[in-house]
Amino acid sequence: MTQATSIRVSSDPQVQYLLRVGDTALILAQRVAEWTGHAPVLEEDIALANIGLDLLGQARGVLTRAGEIEATIESEGHDEDQLAFLREERDYRNATIAELPRGDFAFTVVRNTMMATFFKLLWTRLLQSTDAELAAVAGKAVKEARYHQQHSVDWLVRLALGTDESKQRVVNALGDLWRFNAELFASDAVDEAAVLSGLGPRWGDLKDEWFGEMSQILAAAQLEAPASTPFLSTGKQGTHSEHMGFILAELQYLQRAYPGGTW
Amino acid sequence: MTQATSIRVSSDPQVQYLLRVGDTALILAQRVAEWTGHAPVLEEDIALANIGLDLLGQARGVLTRAGEIEATIESEGHDEDQLAFLREERDYRNATIAELPRGDFAFTVVRNTMMATFFKLLWTRLLQSTDAELAAVAGKAVKEARYHQQHSVDWLVRLALGTDESKQRVVNALGDLWRFNAELFASDAVDEAAVLSGLGPRWGDLKDEWFGEMSQILAAAQLEAPASTPFLSTGKQGTHSEHMGFILAELQYLQRAYPGGTW
Repeated sequence: MTQATSIRVSSDPQVQYLLRVGDTALILAQRVAEWTGHAPVLEEDIALANIGLDLLGQARGVLTRAGEIEATIESEGHDEDQLAFLREERDYRNATIAELPRGDFAFTVVRNTMMATFFKLLWTRLLQSTDAELAAVAGKAVKEARYHQQHSVDWLVRLALGTDESKQRVVNALGDLWRFNAELFASDAVDEAAVLSGLGPRWGDLKDEWFGEMSQILAAAQLEAPASTPFLSTGKQGTHSEHMGFILAELQYLQRAYPGGTW
Repeated sequence: MTQATSIRVSSDPQVQYLLRVGDTALILAQRVAEWTGHAPVLEEDIALANIGLDLLGQARGVLTRAGEIEATIESEGHDEDQLAFLREERDYRNATIAELPRGDFAFTVVRNTMMATFFKLLWTRLLQSTDAELAAVAGKAVKEARYHQQHSVDWLVRLALGTDESKQRVVNALGDLWRFNAELFASDAVDEAAVLSGLGPRWGDLKDEWFGEMSQILAAAQLEAPASTPFLSTGKQGTHSEHMGFILAELQYLQRAYPGGTW
C-alpha cells in the first residue's frame, strides 16, 4: 500500500484562521462520534451521533473554504479531504480541548457544554463575515450550535443535580477541562488579520460573553467554575497533546492507505 | 458500581418478530457507526454516520413497540433502553450478518448493499402491518432504506469498476458475506404467527425479490453472485457468532455501570 505524501498548507493568516475553526470542529466530531453505541440511553446515542454529524458538516464547509482561499493566494489550494486527512500533526490547528480523549459521559457533557457555548458565539459573529461563503456556513452552524448547547446544558444540570456520584463526576470533569478554555481566548496575529480583513472576530473577543453564559449555566447546575490557572494549551499553534497522534492514526488510515480515495 | 440485572423478554412470537427487526437494525447501526472518522472521504464519513443514525432510529421505534406489545401479553413490558441494553447475548435476535466486524470499506459497502436491499423490501411490506405503530415506523424507515440502498450501490459499482485492488476487495467481501443471506430468508413459527396476525411478512417471502434486485445490482457492477452453500447462521435464534460478545460489552457498558441511566 502506498503512503500518501503529506501536504503543506499555506501559512496565510486567513487560511490559518479557518483551519482553527474547521479543525476544532473536525477533531471534536471524532471524539463525540466515539460515543455512538455507548451512551447511557438510546435517545442520547442518537443525539450524540447527530451532534458529531453537525460538527463534521461544519468542518467540511470551513475546510473547503480554507482550500479555496488558499488557491487564491498560493499557486494551488487543497480540497477538504486533503486538508482533513493529509496534514502532519503540527499542521492541525484545533484547540487542544477538542482532542482530549472522550472520558466518561460527564466529561463529554461538560466539554460539549463549553464548546457549544463557544461555537455558538463564534458562529454568531461569523454571520457577519465579509467572506460570503463562510457567512453561509455560519448561518446553518449557528442553529446547530444553539441546539448542541441546549442539549448539553440539559444533561449538565441533570447530572449535577442527580446522584452524589453523577455530581462528583461532573465536578471532576469541570476540574479537568476548565483550564483548557484559556486557549480558546488567546488571540494572536492570525486573529488580528481576520479582524482587519473582516473574515471573523478575535477569538479573545468572545471571552466575556462566554464567561457570562457559562456562569449562568454553572449557577443553574449549582456548580462553581474552577479558579483560573496560568495553564495555556497550544493546539491552535500546532503543538498538540499526546492524544492527537492516536486520533490522526485513525482519521488518516484509509486516506493514506488509498491515496486520493478514488477506489 | 452496581451490576444491573439482565431482563428476560417475552417469548411471544410477535415480540420475537419485532426483536428480529429491531435488533438487526440496532447491531448493524453499531457496525456502521464504527466508520465515523475512518471513511475514505469526509463526505462518506458523514453519509455513514447518517446511515447509522437512521438505523438507530428504526431500532428505537421497533424496540419501543416490542416492549408495548410485551406489556399487553405479560404482566409488564420493557422500555426501549432495557431492551437495547439489558438482555443477555442469547436474547438478542439480530441476523448474524449484522454483527460481523466492520472489515474494510469494501466489506461495509457490500454488507450495506445486501442489508439495505433487504430492509427496503421488509419495510415496504410492513407499511401494510395491522399494527399501526409498526406501520408508522415503516413509513419513515422505507424512505431511509431506499436511500441507503442507492448510496451503497453507488459505491459498490464505483469500487467494482475501479482499480484491480478495489475490485478484488469487493469480490472478497462478497465471498465472505454472501452465505449469510440464507438466514435472512429462513422462516419459522415466528414468521407464521406474524403472517397470521397481520403483523408482518414471512422473511422468506422476500427472498425472490431480494435475489432479483441483487442480481441486477451485481450485474451493474459486473460481479457474480457466489454459489449457494448449505451454511445457515443462527443469530435470529439467539445463537451468535464470537463477535457478538464484544459488541454487547461496548453497547452495555454504561447502562450496566449506571443502572437505569438516571445519573
